Amino acid sequence: MNPAPPDPARPRRAIAIIGGGSIGVAFAIVFARAGHEVRLSEPDAGRRAAIGGILAARLGDLDRYGLVDEPIEAVIGRVELADSHARAVAGAAYVQECAPERLDLKTALFAELVRLAPEDAVLASASSAITASAFAAGLPGRERMLVVHPGNPPFLIPVAEVVPAPFTAEASIAFTQELLAGAGLTPVLIRKEVEGFVFNRLQGALLREAYCLVRDGVVSVEDVDRIVRDGLGLRWSVIGPFETVDLNTSGGIASHAVKMGPAYARMGAERGQHDPWTPDLVEKVAGERRAVLPLEQWAERVAWRDRRLMSLVRHRKTEADA
Amino acid sequence: MNPAPPDPARPRRAIAIIGGGSIGVAFAIVFARAGHEVRLSEPDAGRRAAIGGILAARLGDLDRYGLVDEPIEAVIGRVELADSHARAVAGAAYVQECAPERLDLKTALFAELVRLAPEDAVLASASSAITASAFAAGLPGRERMLVVHPGNPPFLIPVAEVVPAPFTAEASIAFTQELLAGAGLTPVLIRKEVEGFVFNRLQGALLREAYCLVRDGVVSVEDVDRIVRDGLGLRWSVIGPFETVDLNTSGGIASHAVKMGPAYARMGAERGQHDPWTPDLVEKVAGERRAVLPLEQWAERVAWRDRRLMSLVRHRKTEADA
Repeated sequence: MNPAPPDPARPRRAIAIIGGGSIGVAFAIVFARAGHEVRLSEPDAGRRAAIGGILAARLGDLDRYGLVDEPIEAVIGRVELADSHARAVAGAAYVQECAPERLDLKTALFAELVRLAPEDAVLASASSAITASAFAAGLPGRERMLVVHPGNPPFLIPVAEVVPAPFTAEASIAFTQELLAGAGLTPVLIRKEVEGFVFNRLQGALLREAYCLVRDGVVSVEDVDRIVRDGLGLRWSVIGPFETVDLNTSGGIASHAVKMGPAYARMGAERGQHDPWTPDLVEKVAGERRAVLPLEQWAERVAWRDRRLMSLVRHRKTEADA
Repeated sequence: MNPAPPDPARPRRAIAIIGGGSIGVAFAIVFARAGHEVRLSEPDAGRRAAIGGILAARLGDLDRYGLVDEPIEAVIGRVELADSHARAVAGAAYVQECAPERLDLKTALFAELVRLAPEDAVLASASSAITASAFAAGLPGRERMLVVHPGNPPFLIPVAEVVPAPFTAEASIAFTQELLAGAGLTPVLIRKEVEGFVFNRLQGALLREAYCLVRDGVVSVEDVDRIVRDGLGLRWSVIGPFETVDLNTSGGIASHAVKMGPAYARMGAERGQHDPWTPDLVEKVAGERRAVLPLEQWAERVAWRDRRLMSLVRHRKTEADA
């Protein structure tokens, strides 16, 4: 019987960060700003000495934009720099590893962390490419290990991919999601450890098409960026890609798939892709959309989308004028 | 010798819109808000009677968000509803066709428009799928015809794909780009008439991957939307996809391609795509980026990006609190 993970809400136990590179420091800011005591372990004395200044500069920037709710000294005061992993993880409820991307190093590190950390602590790696199945399969305590792949930096890009291995316990996953959400992040559960997870797969799909279009002389690099900035990205920052097409066609995404599916299939086939939007798949996707947004509320949501877009366009106008 | 297109800046001649559906009305708002006299042709009397109310409602919404610089009555006063194409295009410098997406209909319509419009007028179709080569190849005056595919609606999503045929005159293209930019849109030149142009090709590439990931049980529909909204889309609304990876890796996009190219190639190969980022292609893309942003200014641009993101995150926070 494994111990249940700690209650993420109360009484708060420390968060340990392993590695004081840019992602480690950014995670320290996220958790400390949310009120957690943070212990950041950085073995290199020179780097450790620099972290205080980096923290202050980053928090000062955030504060100037109204993104810190208390004096930044209070936030900085919750971050303790540690010269050993043992000190960082002592008593910690959650350990966020942010070390270099090397499998052998992660395996050795997690073997050490599980020995040093409390027996109920959840141990997460910030890896974007190395799965928990790869680094933790042979380790004791593997049911408390998973990947939490953040946006970069996580205090500005809130999405965090929560990627468990098949052996990760449900309780560890639930604890992690609640902890991250409580710290202002947007945890997203990735149910299979596919290469690139989901963030980089979506990014890669768009980038590959963009590279092809530049290669073929269809459009310039700068014009691809303009199309996304003032078109797709503008919309996708308010509603995601599925909601975009769901709200694009009256009747929702099922109608969109009928209307646009064949054209998108042809464009995919030009690139070698043959993944048809079968009736079963469209029914599944549409079913998930209708659970979030019944068609009776469709028109109201379209009006909401337009209000949000107007507000965002006004914001951008203010920025451009500044 | 063809007549030169009119000077888009001065003295202003009317803009004609053909078709009073949602895109036609939206284009009328764009041009009238920018100070142009607009004549909107809608053959259906019932629809024509409704347009005044739609214009007022849409402009009222925009005005509430500070997106109209004068009393909306002044803007509405610049839109004249016409019951014939002849009346709409008389004296017009630019004709924006917004009729249904049918090739036979477009061909017949442009044959009529070129007969009715001034001999220097530029004639643009809002089609998302029918190219000027398809509808205009056999028409007189085809050198003044092209596609201008807007965002939806263009007064909120400013990108507009300018898609000439090989026979479209350079002067007509240049006139169109200047006119659209002057009306607050973001014209983007698409150099080949590929299916889906660029906006829908990029959208399709991401959607196809998203459908695959849902099909394969990797992620839910809602979580795809959250990953984009709070991750990729958030960033892409500030900087596009090429600039994103250019600023992601010190050394810029050439370094990014070396570091991440193989992983993205593997993810593409899983979907049947084999379009390697060859050294030549990477050199071309990196060359275009370096012309926009020399590496000496890279760190400064990263800091600019982060300030813009902080400002956008604060804006979103205000929205969420509202």
